[in-house]
Amino acid sequence: MRQSALFTKTRKEAPADETAKNAMLLIRAGFIHKEMAGVYSILPLGLRVVKKIKDIISGEMEKLGSSELIMSTLQAKELWEKTDRWSDEKVDIWFKSALKSGTEVGFGWSHEEPITNLMKYHVGSYADLPVFVHQFQNKLRNETRAKSGIMRCREFVMKDMYSYATTEEEHMDFYNKTSTAYMNVFKALGLGDITYVTSASGGVFTDKFSHEFQTLCDAGEDNIYLSKDGTTALNEEVFNDETLEKMGKSKEDFELKKAAEVGNIFTFGTKKCEELDVYFTDKDGQKKPVFLGSYGIGVTRLMGVVAEIFGDENGLVWPASIAPFRAHLLVLSEDPLVKELADEVYTTLSAEGVDVLYDDRNLRAGEKFADSDLIGIPTRIIVGNKTIESKMFEVKDRATGETSQMSLEHLLTELQ
Amino acid sequence: MRQSALFTKTRKEAPADETAKNAMLLIRAGFIHKEMAGVYSILPLGLRVVKKIKDIISGEMEKLGSSELIMSTLQAKELWEKTDRWSDEKVDIWFKSALKSGTEVGFGWSHEEPITNLMKYHVGSYADLPVFVHQFQNKLRNETRAKSGIMRCREFVMKDMYSYATTEEEHMDFYNKTSTAYMNVFKALGLGDITYVTSASGGVFTDKFSHEFQTLCDAGEDNIYLSKDGTTALNEEVFNDETLEKMGKSKEDFELKKAAEVGNIFTFGTKKCEELDVYFTDKDGQKKPVFLGSYGIGVTRLMGVVAEIFGDENGLVWPASIAPFRAHLLVLSEDPLVKELADEVYTTLSAEGVDVLYDDRNLRAGEKFADSDLIGIPTRIIVGNKTIESKMFEVKDRATGETSQMSLEHLLTELQ
Repeated sequence: MRQSALFTKTRKEAPADETAKNAMLLIRAGFIHKEMAGVYSILPLGLRVVKKIKDIISGEMEKLGSSELIMSTLQAKELWEKTDRWSDEKVDIWFKSALKSGTEVGFGWSHEEPITNLMKYHVGSYADLPVFVHQFQNKLRNETRAKSGIMRCREFVMKDMYSYATTEEEHMDFYNKTSTAYMNVFKALGLGDITYVTSASGGVFTDKFSHEFQTLCDAGEDNIYLSKDGTTALNEEVFNDETLEKMGKSKEDFELKKAAEVGNIFTFGTKKCEELDVYFTDKDGQKKPVFLGSYGIGVTRLMGVVAEIFGDENGLVWPASIAPFRAHLLVLSEDPLVKELADEVYTTLSAEGVDVLYDDRNLRAGEKFADSDLIGIPTRIIVGNKTIESKMFEVKDRATGETSQMSLEHLLTELQ
Repeated sequence: MRQSALFTKTRKEAPADETAKNAMLLIRAGFIHKEMAGVYSILPLGLRVVKKIKDIISGEMEKLGSSELIMSTLQAKELWEKTDRWSDEKVDIWFKSALKSGTEVGFGWSHEEPITNLMKYHVGSYADLPVFVHQFQNKLRNETRAKSGIMRCREFVMKDMYSYATTEEEHMDFYNKTSTAYMNVFKALGLGDITYVTSASGGVFTDKFSHEFQTLCDAGEDNIYLSKDGTTALNEEVFNDETLEKMGKSKEDFELKKAAEVGNIFTFGTKKCEELDVYFTDKDGQKKPVFLGSYGIGVTRLMGVVAEIFGDENGLVWPASIAPFRAHLLVLSEDPLVKELADEVYTTLSAEGVDVLYDDRNLRAGEKFADSDLIGIPTRIIVGNKTIESKMFEVKDRATGETSQMSLEHLLTELQ
């Protein structure tokens, strides 16, 4: 894409009320726009990142055999009353409104209830199970505080998944496979080394068996205890004598660290299906409640965590897997011959399937460098006056700062 | 996809409170699930259709040079107060709620205000214009009545687009190109022959220059006047002596028809940008307000209109362009040899890039035929006992009902 066709401009300053590094950088670079505290619109550059994160997740969900659907935002009160999660005392993050008729409606902050209710119409026998479904959904949560940029929003995209199984054993098989799939996602985003699976209590969701995926991050809102050998992490809630004794470890073996929860997996058991009347007939003809699991990854939160962790004093730093573009091509001269060469490089790279942002604007080199650093595309390619003769391009790695000279042929090998 | 892996089952009956043909068929076939009046979740088969409609639209938007973004659902009151569209007297379809702090928030029923406000940060000079942006957004509208299935919902997916231009002339150029692009979309969906561009008043949006795209449909909520020669259509609001005189036509030349509005294009002029303080500096150094246009296509509504118009007494009938699958392969025997042949056909078609739903379930032929008719995939392929010797497959066109015998080679040519 030619940068002259990108309507967003970089900004020198983020809004005065924005204090989170991730949102400040993403706003300044033109990836997101702040609508109000905890509410951001996603601009074209940001949407490219979100789509790449979604694609990585979709690939893993497909391998798990999960089917994609999309549930409604508007939620019926009756359904959530059946499981006692409608009242504001029980769930304090509901946004609610009313139809013209006066009927109260809620706005989806989670979707266990409607998806489980849906299963009533599609699950009858053991032969129909297990069923795995997921969605990329815009969740709305009336959070009291929203000060961590897009790491904690009142509106955000979540990939949530639900599993329906005949037995706990069948459930645990999928639960464990999902745990591996989730780690694959975090690895693909460059977060593998600093993301830990932690045992957790389930908060508003459940007090049953559950795990969180916690990424070490100074701006994270969670505390975890990381073993000094870096192999184990424990959530604050389970860091007690009992747990330590079981593990044969002592408090001194652990350090307190800040972390951001990027995913979670829950075992609901059969309670919710009993409450919502979702049963199946087993091989022996017996009616049994379905066993529910629930799994989430914060899609837009992940964009924030990556921005927060990898971003430096000059701007964003994207891993190639989710960068809005693979390469940023800068032409640094108004000389028609130089521009012609840059056009040629742009055409060649694009034809070979390399996603390139081409800064073809008539700006000073300093401005182009600053914008390029701020936007954070992995590889920067310079076409300047000197390039005409040498036919060697100056290539800079955004993450390491390393520069090298490469021929177009070499570049193509590097970028494909 | 193997049908045994599709968790949705067809249903004999739609919910008792569902009276719209489109929703009844889509629910019975497992494309959507009704959450409440005017609110539907989209199940895997429906999501495939929606994604194909989106892809067709995206292709046209790309040709127009529009950039995709996604705005937030949560809306700030102050912004809409500036244009006097916050109060329920002015806009009677708002869903509203409040943050914990008591601050009122709205849920997006349209996005002119926030997108225009966003442009303040990215448009400064004439050189930044024109800008075209679009999104696929989940709109929430507190409709009093919602009885037309997914043709009028309280929650629905809309592709909305906004154009920002320096002059009316520049605006009209894009406006006209969009009109053509929209007709291309309707043609691709098989609605080209029965969709008319009509002059319209803008209702809640504007009273300026605007057009609607109306598809003839008995279940449509709009009335249009169609000329008996089928060349011209007029909206009810403009069907008067003045208009007819200008056209040199009389009332008798027209017939009243029911229609569904599938798209619309609006000329807002400069008023909204003045209200929201969005100006640019022109070549002559003068500060001028930006000229706004707004364009919409109802994505999920289109799924409903297609279901409504093409559906017959046996079920849905999809045009190949948006069908959830291109072909429906049915195996009608438990004989291992027949199953083996069907597996082979499935593998071959899939490998050649044909999207196939393979009914590999152990059900009676009659049940498979009924499900296949209900789901409405364009081409049905039968593998039965006779196929083993003849190697000729019975192929049926869902729309015309025509059957023929084809070799696998012939089938591949037909379906690619």
